This record gives sequence, C-alpha cells and structure tokens, in this order.
Amino acid sequence: MTKVIKNGTIVTADRQWKADVLIEGEKIAQIGENLSGDEVIDASDAYVIPGGIDPHTHLEMPFMGTTAAETFESGTFAAAAGGTTMLVDFCLPGEDGSLLNAIDEWDRKSRDQICTDISYHMAITGWNEKIWGEMEAVVKDRGINTFKHFMAYKGALMVEDDEMFASFRRCAELGALPLVHAENGDIVAAKQEQLLADGITGPEGHAYSRPPEVEGEAANRAIMIADAAGTPLYIVHVSCEQAHEAIRRARQKGMRVYGEPLIQHLTLDESEYFNKDWQYAARRVMSPPFRNKMHQDSLWAGLASGSLQVVATDHAAFSDEQKRMGVGDFTRIPNGTGGLEERMAMLWTKGVDTGRLTPEEFVAATSTNIAKILNIYPMKGGLTVGGDADVVVWDPSIKRTVSVATQKSIIDYNVFEGMELSAAPRYTLSRGEVIWAHGQNSQPQPGRGKFVRRNPFASASKALSKWKALNTPRKIERDPMNIPAGV
Amino acid sequence: MTKVIKNGTIVTADRQWKADVLIEGEKIAQIGENLSGDEVIDASDAYVIPGGIDPHTHLEMPFMGTTAAETFESGTFAAAAGGTTMLVDFCLPGEDGSLLNAIDEWDRKSRDQICTDISYHMAITGWNEKIWGEMEAVVKDRGINTFKHFMAYKGALMVEDDEMFASFRRCAELGALPLVHAENGDIVAAKQEQLLADGITGPEGHAYSRPPEVEGEAANRAIMIADAAGTPLYIVHVSCEQAHEAIRRARQKGMRVYGEPLIQHLTLDESEYFNKDWQYAARRVMSPPFRNKMHQDSLWAGLASGSLQVVATDHAAFSDEQKRMGVGDFTRIPNGTGGLEERMAMLWTKGVDTGRLTPEEFVAATSTNIAKILNIYPMKGGLTVGGDADVVVWDPSIKRTVSVATQKSIIDYNVFEGMELSAAPRYTLSRGEVIWAHGQNSQPQPGRGKFVRRNPFASASKALSKWKALNTPRKIERDPMNIPAGV
Amino acid sequence: MTKVIKNGTIVTADRQWKADVLIEGEKIAQIGENLSGDEVIDASDAYVIPGGIDPHTHLEMPFMGTTAAETFESGTFAAAAGGTTMLVDFCLPGEDGSLLNAIDEWDRKSRDQICTDISYHMAITGWNEKIWGEMEAVVKDRGINTFKHFMAYKGALMVEDDEMFASFRRCAELGALPLVHAENGDIVAAKQEQLLADGITGPEGHAYSRPPEVEGEAANRAIMIADAAGTPLYIVHVSCEQAHEAIRRARQKGMRVYGEPLIQHLTLDESEYFNKDWQYAARRVMSPPFRNKMHQDSLWAGLASGSLQVVATDHAAFSDEQKRMGVGDFTRIPNGTGGLEERMAMLWTKGVDTGRLTPEEFVAATSTNIAKILNIYPMKGGLTVGGDADVVVWDPSIKRTVSVATQKSIIDYNVFEGMELSAAPRYTLSRGEVIWAHGQNSQPQPGRGKFVRRNPFASASKALSKWKALNTPRKIERDPMNIPAGV
Amino acid sequence: MTKVIKNGTIVTADRQWKADVLIEGEKIAQIGENLSGDEVIDASDAYVIPGGIDPHTHLEMPFMGTTAAETFESGTFAAAAGGTTMLVDFCLPGEDGSLLNAIDEWDRKSRDQICTDISYHMAITGWNEKIWGEMEAVVKDRGINTFKHFMAYKGALMVEDDEMFASFRRCAELGALPLVHAENGDIVAAKQEQLLADGITGPEGHAYSRPPEVEGEAANRAIMIADAAGTPLYIVHVSCEQAHEAIRRARQKGMRVYGEPLIQHLTLDESEYFNKDWQYAARRVMSPPFRNKMHQDSLWAGLASGSLQVVATDHAAFSDEQKRMGVGDFTRIPNGTGGLEERMAMLWTKGVDTGRLTPEEFVAATSTNIAKILNIYPMKGGLTVGGDADVVVWDPSIKRTVSVATQKSIIDYNVFEGMELSAAPRYTLSRGEVIWAHGQNSQPQPGRGKFVRRNPFASASKALSKWKALNTPRKIERDPMNIPAGV
Repeated sequence: MTKVIKNGTIVTADRQWKADVLIEGEKIAQIGENLSGDEVIDASDAYVIPGGIDPHTHLEMPFMGTTAAETFESGTFAAAAGGTTMLVDFCLPGEDGSLLNAIDEWDRKSRDQICTDISYHMAITGWNEKIWGEMEAVVKDRGINTFKHFMAYKGALMVEDDEMFASFRRCAELGALPLVHAENGDIVAAKQEQLLADGITGPEGHAYSRPPEVEGEAANRAIMIADAAGTPLYIVHVSCEQAHEAIRRARQKGMRVYGEPLIQHLTLDESEYFNKDWQYAARRVMSPPFRNKMHQDSLWAGLASGSLQVVATDHAAFSDEQKRMGVGDFTRIPNGTGGLEERMAMLWTKGVDTGRLTPEEFVAATSTNIAKILNIYPMKGGLTVGGDADVVVWDPSIKRTVSVATQKSIIDYNVFEGMELSAAPRYTLSRGEVIWAHGQNSQPQPGRGKFVRRNPFASASKALSKWKALNTPRKIERDPMNIPAGV
Repeated sequence: MTKVIKNGTIVTADRQWKADVLIEGEKIAQIGENLSGDEVIDASDAYVIPGGIDPHTHLEMPFMGTTAAETFESGTFAAAAGGTTMLVDFCLPGEDGSLLNAIDEWDRKSRDQICTDISYHMAITGWNEKIWGEMEAVVKDRGINTFKHFMAYKGALMVEDDEMFASFRRCAELGALPLVHAENGDIVAAKQEQLLADGITGPEGHAYSRPPEVEGEAANRAIMIADAAGTPLYIVHVSCEQAHEAIRRARQKGMRVYGEPLIQHLTLDESEYFNKDWQYAARRVMSPPFRNKMHQDSLWAGLASGSLQVVATDHAAFSDEQKRMGVGDFTRIPNGTGGLEERMAMLWTKGVDTGRLTPEEFVAATSTNIAKILNIYPMKGGLTVGGDADVVVWDPSIKRTVSVATQKSIIDYNVFEGMELSAAPRYTLSRGEVIWAHGQNSQPQPGRGKFVRRNPFASASKALSKWKALNTPRKIERDPMNIPAGV
Repeated sequence: MTKVIKNGTIVTADRQWKADVLIEGEKIAQIGENLSGDEVIDASDAYVIPGGIDPHTHLEMPFMGTTAAETFESGTFAAAAGGTTMLVDFCLPGEDGSLLNAIDEWDRKSRDQICTDISYHMAITGWNEKIWGEMEAVVKDRGINTFKHFMAYKGALMVEDDEMFASFRRCAELGALPLVHAENGDIVAAKQEQLLADGITGPEGHAYSRPPEVEGEAANRAIMIADAAGTPLYIVHVSCEQAHEAIRRARQKGMRVYGEPLIQHLTLDESEYFNKDWQYAARRVMSPPFRNKMHQDSLWAGLASGSLQVVATDHAAFSDEQKRMGVGDFTRIPNGTGGLEERMAMLWTKGVDTGRLTPEEFVAATSTNIAKILNIYPMKGGLTVGGDADVVVWDPSIKRTVSVATQKSIIDYNVFEGMELSAAPRYTLSRGEVIWAHGQNSQPQPGRGKFVRRNPFASASKALSKWKALNTPRKIERDPMNIPAGV
Repeated sequence: MTKVIKNGTIVTADRQWKADVLIEGEKIAQIGENLSGDEVIDASDAYVIPGGIDPHTHLEMPFMGTTAAETFESGTFAAAAGGTTMLVDFCLPGEDGSLLNAIDEWDRKSRDQICTDISYHMAITGWNEKIWGEMEAVVKDRGINTFKHFMAYKGALMVEDDEMFASFRRCAELGALPLVHAENGDIVAAKQEQLLADGITGPEGHAYSRPPEVEGEAANRAIMIADAAGTPLYIVHVSCEQAHEAIRRARQKGMRVYGEPLIQHLTLDESEYFNKDWQYAARRVMSPPFRNKMHQDSLWAGLASGSLQVVATDHAAFSDEQKRMGVGDFTRIPNGTGGLEERMAMLWTKGVDTGRLTPEEFVAATSTNIAKILNIYPMKGGLTVGGDADVVVWDPSIKRTVSVATQKSIIDYNVFEGMELSAAPRYTLSRGEVIWAHGQNSQPQPGRGKFVRRNPFASASKALSKWKALNTPRKIERDPMNIPAGV
C-alpha cells in the first residue's frame, strides 16, 4: 500500500519546490512530479515539510515533589496535532543513581503510551565511576548520544564544574554530545533566599531570582569547560542575549556550540510574571524565565543568522493545582510550561509571516538542524528518499486561536491562550501513517510510537576530535643537563 | 546512455552516505544503492561531491591598462582540473557604460572558449538613468541576479555612497543581490600617494596602502547602506577580522549579509610582500592583500560557524611580464592572483584535514552555499535528482605538490607553489560529461560550457522584503489644529 | 580684593573634600581649611565644583536659511545661570571660504555680547590649498586647536572622505584635534527624499531619516580615517549604541577616540517626534534625533566606564516661528534644540541622584575631561591653585521645575519643560566674579567674557605621534638583482 | 626642616607642568614656582611624580609548602629603588581561619622590616559566621577595605560561588571592595592531572594547564556574582584578552569593574615556558602564566582606553632552590615571579617611550588610579598639598640593564634580566624622607614604613549602592482574591 502526497510545495531546510511525495510503508520512496499511489493525500495550496522534532520535553517528569501532568500519551498526541512527529525527552536517574535503570524506567513509562517516535537525553546529575562506566552502555547499547547537565537546581540536579568537566571528557571519548541547562545554581539559590526574606513570595520573585546575567554566566562557563574537554556543546533553552552572546563569542573562535531557544522565550515576555492574577503568573513560571523584547530580538536574529539552531519547548506541563504548591513561596511553584502543540504554528506566525525567517529556516529550526545535531538526519528531520515518512502537510489557510478548550494537551490552561495562529497541519504523518488530520477527529494511538536510536560521533564531533588531536600540548624535550636536581 | 558513479561516499552540505549516482544525459537521475548504468565511474575509496562553484573570477579582464592573462579557455580548464564545474565572472561595462553591451561583449569573449558552465555578475561602476533602466533587463532578460559595486579603485571603478544606495534600492526592487568590493578607495588612494612620496615603491607598499581597517570600514558602510535600502548584501573577498566583525555584527542584528573569504587569504600571509625577490612579492599583489595569522584564524572560524559562507578565488591572473608594469611603482602592479585550480584541494588540505571544517562544511563552502545565494540551487551546487550532473569524485589518496610545471593555468607561476595538497579530483563531470580524469591526459573542450541563468528573489530576499514592508515608516496623523501655518 | 568660598564640599574629577577656596582677582589663590578673604561666599551644605564647560554650541548660527535665535548674550547668560562658565562655539566659514575671516566674523558677533568665556571650533567645510594654509594660522595665531568636519548636511557643510583625510592629516601635523558630526549625509539625503515622496512630511520623518545605523556608520568611518591619518578624534553628539560601539571598538584597539553625548540624548527619547502636536515635535528636531531607552542606557554606561567623556548640548536654539519653516517638509525644520541652562542640573538629577554617576564623574563629564581634551586644563575645568576662578557653588537643596517662564534663554519653549531638577547653582563665578547668584536677580554682563586661546599638541596627541613615528611603513631593501626591469 | 624639589616637570594623572614641590615633615606643603626650603633636591631635566603604589605583593608568603623568599625588608627596599613607595600585601588566614589573627601575624612579620608604607588585602579563603563577623572588624577596626577571593588553587585557597556571593554581599554592606584571582580552579586542577598523566611534567605544562579561556571564564563569573551582590569588583592580574573582554563587556553595561594587568604580562610572553633550560622556564612560572603578543596588545590598549586601570607585579619571589621543588612535576613549582623593582621603569620603557601611554597615564596606572580605588587618594597616589610626600624624581637619562648582580631584591635571578630600561628614580621620597638616591649607596631602613589605613565606601561604591537601592525587586501587590489557596 502506497500513499502519495500530491500538489504541495515541498519545503526543506534547503529549498522549496513543487513535487509529490510517494510513501511506501514507513519510508519516503520517491519525490518528484506526477507521482501516484494507492492513497492520495491532498497538499494543494499547502506546504509539505518534515515532521517537527521537539528535542526538549519532560513528560510525566518527577520534579519538585510532583510529576509533570502531561503524559506520554497526551504529550505525543498534542505534538502530532501541532505537526511534531518526534520528541526527545529527558531521562533522569532515580534514587539508585543508575543511568541504565533510568532508561528502563523511562521505557516502561513511555512504551505503551507514545503516539509519535521519541528518544531520550540522559541526565548526568552526579559523578562517580559507575556513571562513568554506564555512559558507555548508554551510548553503545541504548542508542543515546546526548547527556544533559544541570548547572542549576542546587541540592537536586545540579552538578559542579569538575563533574561537568569529567562528564564532558567522557562525552568526547564516546562521541556523545553534552547538553547543559545554563543557570548558576548557587546564585539562583542565594537570590531565592534573599527574595523570600524580603517578602517577595509571588511569581515575580521567580523572574527576579534568575536574571539574564545568571544564565549568561553559566552558558559562558559551560562553553569553556566543553572547549577544555574537547567536545561540542549544546545549550538548551537559551533565553537571553547574555547566553546568546556567549555562544556567538565561542562560535566566532571556531568552537562548536549550539543554542536552542524556546518558542516561549521567542514570543512571551517577562511582564507575564507581574500579572495581578497569581495563577496566571504561576502558569508561566519556568526556568529560565521569560525576558524582555530586546532579548527576543536577539534570539530571532540568532535563528536567522545561524548562531542559534533549534527551536524547542521544554514542555513540562504542570496543572493549576500543581502550580498552587507554590502559593506563598515562588520557589515551590513547579517549573515548566507547555508548548508542544503550538511550537510550529507560533514560529510560523511570528517568524515566517513577519519575514524574520524564511520558510527554509523555519524547517531548519523545527526539525532539520536538530536531526543533524542528534545524528539522525536524514532518517528524521528531512524529506529524503529512504528516510522515515515523518511528513506534515502544512496549511497556511487554517487559522485558529489558541484555546485550552480545543487543545490536545491535558493541562488546564495554555500560556499562548488567545493568540492567533496563521497556519496548522492539515495532515501529520508519522512513518507513513496519518496520525493527525485537521477537522477529522483524530485520536491518539498510544503505543504506535517507537524509540529512535542515535549513533555517536556526528560529523562536527569527528572534526573537533581531529583538531584537538593536532593541537595537543607538546612536551619540551630538555637536555637532562638543563634539568636540575629536584628539592 | 547512462553513467553511474559507483561505490563512493557521497558528501553534501547535509550529510555523508554510501550510495551510487546515476546520470542520464546532463542530469542526475537517481541516487541510491546498487545502481547500474551504461558506463561506470569508479568512486571506490573516494568521496562524491557536487562540482565546485567559484563565484569570483576575472578571466581576460581588462584592468589597470592590461588584460588578465588567464583566458576563458585556460581558466575553465584549470577549474575543471581542480574540481570546479562552474564559475561566475565579473562583467564590466565598457566605455559606453552600457550594461547590456557589456554582457554581449562577455558572451563574445567566453562563448566559444568555456569548458565549464559560467555566469556573470554585472558591475555597476557609475550611476545614471540608463543604468537604472538596464538593470531590469539584466535581471529579467539576461538572467543575472547579482550586481557588483567597487568601493575601491578610485577614478576607475569606484562608486560613491549615494550611487551605491540608489543601486542597492534598485536591487531590492528587482530581487537582485548587490555585491561589494569593500575597501575605502579614497583612503587607499591617499595612502598610495603618501607611500610613493615616502619612497616605498615596492610590493610591500601594496600591503601598507590597504590595511585591514580600510577594508573593515568599507564593509561596515556597505552593510549600513544595504540595510537602509532593504536588501541582502554579499561582500566579496573578506580578508580580515575587521570586515568579518562588521559582518558578524550585522548578522547578529538579523541583517542578511554574506561574506566570501578567498582561499588565498585563508592560507597565505602578509609576509609574502616583504620577500626580497620583487617578482615573488609582485605575484602576490592582490586587493585586499594577504593578512596575518590572526585574520586567517578569524576567517576559518567564520566558515565553521556560518558567519562566512563561501570560499572563492578572485582569480585574476597576470603574467610575470604584466606584473612588471609596476616595477618602481607598486600601484601599477596589476592586482590579482590565481587559485581556480587549487581552491578546493587547498581548502580540503588546510580545512578538512586539520579538523577545522567537516567534509559537509567543505561542500557547503565550495558549492552549495553560493548556489543558494545565487538562487541556482539545486540545479547547481548539490547532488539532487533532477539537478545538473556537475559531480566530482574527490580522491583523498591523490597527493600532489603545487607546481607551475604541472598546472593547467597558463600563468607562469603559482602563488601556492610547493604546497602539498592531500586530495584531488579523480573525475570531474560537468552536466554528465567527464571533463577531467586524473592521470588520463584530459584536454580542454572549449565551447562546451553554457551560460547559467539565475532568477531573482531568492528566499532570503523575499523574507527581507516582507520584514521591510511590515516595518516601513508610519505617518503620524495630526489634527490640522495641531499643525501651525508654515513660515 | 579677595573672595573666599567657605564651608563647602569641593568636588573635582578626582575626589571630594571639605575645604575653602580663596580667590585673588581672576585666579584661585589657595584651597584649604579655614581660609579667609575680603568677601565670603557661603557654600554651606553645598558642593563647590569647577564651572561647567559646554564644548558644543551654535549661538546666532546662520543655518538652513535662518539664524539660531539664541544670541551670544542670552546664551552665555543662560549658561551662567546653569553653572556653565565657558562654552565653545562652532565657527563656520562664510561664502569666501576663509577660515580667518570666519574667526573675525565670530569675534565681531561675540565680542561685546558674551557674559562668560568662550572659544571656537573651526569648521572645515571644503578643502583646498588656502584652507590647508590657513589652518596653521588658525592654530598658531588664533589659538584654536580643534577643527570640525560635517559628514552630514549634503550640499551644504558636508565633506567627502578624501577631504576629511587630508584635513585630519593636517591636524596631525599641527597637533590639532579633528571633530566630526557623524552621520552619513548621502544616505540621510536619500532617505529624506524618499520619505517626502512617501508623504511623510512631519517631524517623525526627521527621526526616520536618520536612524542609528547611519550615525554608527559615519562614526566608524571617521575613526578609520583618523587612525589612517595618525590623529586622535573627537566625535560630537554621540546619540546611539551604534556610534558608541564604534568608539569602544576603536578604543579597545588603543586608538585615541573621544565621544560626546548630549544631555538631550541622555534624557529625552524618540517618542517625542511622534507627538500629535506638530510644534511640540518640531521643537525637538535636532541631528542626530533622540533615540530609545536602550541607546540612553548605553550612553550612561559609557560615561561611567570612560568610553564616553563629555556631556554637551549642541545648543542651537530656533524659535517656534523658525521651526515653522518646516511645516509640510520636515527637512526644512531648522535643526537644533537648547539645553545650555539645564545641562548640568539634568545630568545631576538623572545621573548622580540615581547612582549612575559619582559626583566626581559628574565633574569630569561637565568640565574636566573636555578641558583636558581641549588642552586648557587646569586653567579651565579644574579647581587648581593658579587656575581661573571659574567656580560654581552647587546646591542640592535648590529644586526647580524647568519652565520657559523662568528660563534665561530667549527661546519661546524648552525641551525639558516640566522636568524636576534636584540641584542648581547657588553662585556661579567666572574668573573670580559672581555672574549668577540664585534668587538675587542677576543680570547679563555682556562683553565681560573673554576668548580662551588653546595650544596644540595635547598629551594624547604627542603620544600618538610617537607611536605612529615608531610604526611607519618600512621600505624593503631589495638587491637590484631581485628587481626586474619594468615593462 | 623643609625640603624642596626643584626645577622638575611635575607629572600627575592629570597634567604636566614645571613647578617645585615644598615638603614639610611628611607632607607636601606647597607646589609652585620658585619655592625654597632647607634642603634642595634637584629635579632638573627630570620628572617629579607620585611615588608608585604596587597593590599586589606576596612578601614572605607561606605558599605551596614553602615561603616566598622576598622579605618585607628586601621587598620594600627593592620597591623604593624602583620608585615604589607603598605596596599592598595579601594577608592570608592561618590554620585557625581567623582574619584578625592573620592581620596580627602579618603585622608581626612586617612591622620591623618595612622600608616603605604598606597595607594589606585580606584574603577570604572559606566561609562561615565567624568570618562574616570578623569582616566588620577588619574594615572598621583594622582599616582594611579590600577582600581577596581565589577562584583557583583548588583544595587550598579556592572558594566556591556561593561563598563568593556571600562574601561579596558582605563587602557591599561594609562598603569594602572584593578582589578576585580569576581562574577556574576545577578546570586547572583537572588539566594539571591530565598533563602529568600525559607525561608533560616540565614548566610548559604550567602554561598548558591555565589557558586564557580558563581565566576569562572565571573573570566573567566573578563579575556576574559582583553584579548580583551589588558591589564593585577588582580583578587582579588580568593577563589575557578573554578576561579583559569580560571586564569591558561588564563596564559597557555600567558595571563597576576594575582590572589590573601585571608588568610581567605586559612585557613577557609565553614562549618563556618553552625554554630548553628548566630553571629558566621555572623561574617564570606564575599564575596566570604569560600569554602571547595578541594578549599583550589587548592589555596595553586597555590601559590607554581606561578599561584597565592599574599595573601591579604580584611580586611573589621564590628562589631557584624553591623553584626546584617542582622538578618532575610542574604543579609543585612555587608560583610567582618578582618585579617590584622594575615595574615602573619597564612600564615607562615599553609604554611611554613607545607612545602607547602618555606620561599622565603612566602615573595613573602606577599610583593614582589604585589610590582612588583603595580610597586613600590623595593622601597617597597624588602630588597634593596636604598629602603624604611620597614623591619620585624620575630621571629619563638614567639608563640601565636589568641584572641580578645589581638588583636590590634578594632573589637569585630576575625575569627581566638583560632588558634595557630607559628611566629610573633619581630620588625616591617616602613621607618626606629620601629613601633612595641613585648612585649614592642607599641602604634599607627597616621599620620606618607604616601601615596605611583605608576607609570603606569609596565614591563608586556609594554610587552603586544608590543605583541598586533604586532598582531593587518590587513586590506585586495582588488582591487576595487573585491568590488561590495553596496546595
């Protein structure tokens, strides 16, 4: 049984052209003119793009004494409704500290629920020989080539510089890519304490406790450590000019550093935390917090110029009730917002419609670049013969207003509530299967998603290894005559 | 009759993979495993890459009272021998100032000579209504979407800021891309005069007369003018950190600016002008001059990070005798060096072998990026089904030493003389035809090359137009009561 | 007859301390504790600071078809009322182009009018041998060590790059300091034409026609030209981050570049031009135009960090009627605003009271730095034994609201109207004479002011000359054998 | 008994002028023309400048298992011989961790030995309530307004970010200034381990273990922490562009950050560590290590432009024998070099003679700026009536070659050995007493030096406090209706 997506304009990270896409089973079989297949999917007046990849989600994550309310089922279905066909979730070690057990646990949670494909980033939240040893198995046996490090959440997930350096060096050896959450946890913790002591207990305290300089500092530090360890680096949720500046500065020295802004930081601003309605403000509490327009302009320019590569969501959705854990103490508001469903349409509306981004850059930022970084391109993240048929018919004539009433996420609010979106998926295909069709009452298909294995040693990693090998310290050969006896 | 390139590793700007390439006539018909064709081209142990595009040549150019000695025949054959299958030459208006007549003249010169495909950039060396009018025909009738502006060569090619602004606005209307040679011609001229007066008449005077700040200033100015005119901008032969910094600064504001370093500036340095042998030094005289290692590091980092996109040659080769026009007065040494034949191998040797660039970035810098910028991708600059079969079998086991004795260029020296190159084309195909085969006594085939038409309104140009349209000045509506009577 | 200023806190650019100031005749005779004199000037609960120097005024300037309405009498009296005891006015050549005649004309206009001391900057508005020759007399005979260059006002005052370079080199020879008005006149003129064509004829057009990038470009260009000519450079009315960035970038390379923000740009923003009341907006028309808050923050930081040195006014005050020359065509609104009287109090209120600046930095920015730059320190710009007794008793308990009703300027409005000022001069002394006493009905004393001669070769100029002399191009000595015969 | 320094050219941070200096007892009594006194000190053909202040020494410091060999006697006498009349030594807590006991210990060591005046910086090498408490006594009772923090020397002196933040906030409360040694100790330690494991055990390993990025990172981090804590910051021994860039970036945001390059880093480069003679290289081992010429240019430009303020030495001189503790393991080479005696002459030779610095800037960098920063100006660091008569007659006709044979330091080598110095003190006066006279066999006068008390709340500290107070977080007042019940 074949399918053909007909009459659309294909957009990839490279180019746009009119062509049909023929799908055989789970794969793209052909791209060309006048193709035919058993089933026709109409793409007239629409674009045909690679399915989105959101590389930053926390579904059902145990965090801050509760568990993120979005499930693997609801989350992946919301993703599909928004045009995203793969997501990468963060896998956190449990109390036993074992990475491999954590993966088993994540598999258990996700396996029967996921509607789209997924993968995991493995979190390194401490350091010891066991972790050092397990990292190899994580990469080679489990197909995970990314390790996440938290520079914030002191006393919980945070790691110290020497631990990061050790882990980054291990990543360099294994050809894996380290990721960091860049905020200085020490300073955040001290600021939180001070703000609470000063009686600032509401959500505005969240913004005050995590200023841009605190993020920029950590980004800068992680970059230095990655450079010293000889590994590329990926900085998640870059929210501000300070962190972006650190990334640019590194890149202009030839360092291999990637930056990921979130759709929330691109489109929402810090004034939200000063809303008079506590619940409204608390819903927006995430780390880093939203910033002002100057920072947004910086992030948009980064996407256009290539100093930032990926737009993600950090989807970590807590219910209103969960947020209320932080009444009277903003530090106890579970950190996280949603966005999986809106990411692509928001980026199109605020980016492509305004001319900030080309359609090709839109595709690059929503799928292709991250697929390359994660070393799964073009199986994912492109429209390539032989690649997975993760395809979206992207319809710029479907207008809608974000509303909790119509969203697929099971959270009881939406941080984009009321915003007008100028495009939406007409169809979302995952490995050749239509998992979302606009206006046709699509339903979740839990369990159909698969785990995507990823190989280490992406091209940039190989090049950097070569460079570092050619530039190692060289021992000065001294004539013994010129070395005195020691003391 | 079909050809199949077998058993190679394909490298595109995107990725690397093992596959065969099937060619039918002039086009790529299929890319996949186990393909077969009438003729087999062996790519075992080699890479298969898009044919190189050199967007910056001056063949047989009348300049500084002489004519560049490299002909369209010798130049395009040298190109083919080095893996370059298309070049873009600069078309200069003659005494009548007509753009269209200049194109006719360039056609006349090149038509029966070229061995590879070519296109032209049209130079704007003055400004008047006729030029304004002809620009439309250049774009729409002649298929040229780029206009070059010289900010140097005062009294000859140089244009003033108001002329540039007018031309850039015309480019914006037509969807064409302005190019600039960025050096402040006034200051160069004044410095030349001063140096000669101070008795510095040798080639070292050339370096002194064109310091990096003079280039950086002009780049910065051109960027501002492009921004004001609402057009992307392409800066040719970016040789120094100062110009690169101006480009980065623009890009981080979201401006659409491209930068092209030359292979010479990436690999040769300013000490060459201080050589005790006049002829040796004079051969290296080009504008901008070579710079020091700090500048080279900046350019390499720009290629890796994406702030610079394209590696070209500015191939403008004058013979030893021609160079001697400047004995006793460096300002009369014809400006230009060669490089068409060595560009790709030098970039591989100094870039990929050292780990500065990935193989994918090598392809991007030698063909794909410029093809996108010139809006001819993927007909050129990629390996795409349906695209032109401009393909190179790139063999990392062919080592050679640059030597005037073996080069295809007809110039009597080579600025890279004696350098070891670590890779070379095993075969070069232009539109499906093998025009170069290593060790097989390939010969020029003058007249087989074609002129490549290019459409205006590349994707970045369209996005920028949209942005500018949404951000035009808005008139304040004032109550007539609030506007006094004038004086 | 001696005077003693008693019981104040002295503030200089260096430090603060409690001391009395003894004045004999026109000079400071002693500074110390418990001094006594014939006349006591009470400085209890007040600061004692050097009289302000405003290095940027245009009194009675013929410009844009009219003449600035503020006279030398009213302007210098307003200055005194605000704590400013010296100003430097711009002297423009008349139709005969002679610099020396222009000075004579300025002397004629000012001599019998000025209440405070003054000096002139000489404008270079064209270039020829006569000007080259007269520059020496201007410096050596007339005691003027600064030459102003307009990069804007095309068709009127504007000079081209080669003219600037020639003039800057002449400045380097003479030990004089070039000044520039940095805006790209070509682009401004083209934008003006375009805006008028688009029907944007009101004062908002003024802002649109002179965006920050246009100023930043010119600043950057002037800096390069000064570097090439081997002279320090002073950039007047730095209004935006772009120009400030160019200055910082130059300074971090060791170049000797100074920047002068205006009190207006530090405190007023671009929204003024969008006021619904034409006259309100037109009153604010000056070049460069006011900018937004991001630019203001940049300027304030520059004053604190030392990348900007001087706060001036560009006082060029046109009456409401004069402004109305531009009804229906913003390009005909005479450019200029006032500020002489408010400069110091505005800077104190918005700078010192907020903690942006220390009191010492306030003094540096209002008098000391410019006195050093103009090479008249410590005769002017300090509180030094032997120096001129230009002293202000600065009273932080005198609060007032800016109002046209109470100002000393004769202009019929005030761009700071309604703003609250937190300090004011209790007494202003010029060469030992009280020329302003708060609340005591002081009157102008036209003709008492003197012209201040300034010597060339300030210390930075000498150091730069030394550096340049050590770093001149060196001729390569080539064996004649290694120089071929020319062609 | 009065002294008069006659016929010299006075140079201060402000200006140069011909005048005599009258000294009564320990103080400057008068500056003017034609002064006379009981004793005449001839300054003909020489400059008269403030005595130098070296704010960074480690005399007799217990460190790395030994004690710096330079004593308070020899060090202060060497200082005097070089024109330095005050130094600030680092006081380190002993095993009991008490700050006050450490001061007592330092007093005990220095009291009877010092030939010039001194003061201490107090080191914070850990954090607890006792230290928090003692800091107040250190400031208020002991007259020390600076606290040093080591971000390097892991396991020994290093403090963590939360400790730094706590200490910096304490500094902000007390009006004291925090200092940092900026290198990331974790990364240095890991790199050391790796290098030793790789067999790189010689002094070159020292350079490799502490690359510029590691210093830049720490500088950047300390700046963020100071900003968060609301205090100015002083970064000692800024050796590289990376740290300087962080400082500039902070300053351009209006942050109050100071940077201190050392005379060694300005004039010696990293090639020293690659010397074939182990002892030669080991003598140069200090932290941060010497850098390359690009970094030196950056530092010189910083001094001219004001982004760096002070030139110090970090004089910590270990004997050849002590250095040999590190044979076979570079991490055990005691870190430190000398320079007290050569600092001023080297800066004059390489800075003023080349035109990089004006004479005024030389004075600013060697005494005035640090005196202001330490809040002891103009008692120290200036030539001011009423200030201490710490005065040097600086003779540009005394040429000499640095040589261990003639130096006053008791160390058995000199890192500047063989360099030509173009100026030297003819006389050095400390509080009115000639303690060094060129060619007159001056001898140390141990015990004549005094401890200099310094008050908190320098002007910049006060301004920053004001700014921070006006910009504290503001609590959002929410209607109780809009705050839900917590969970």
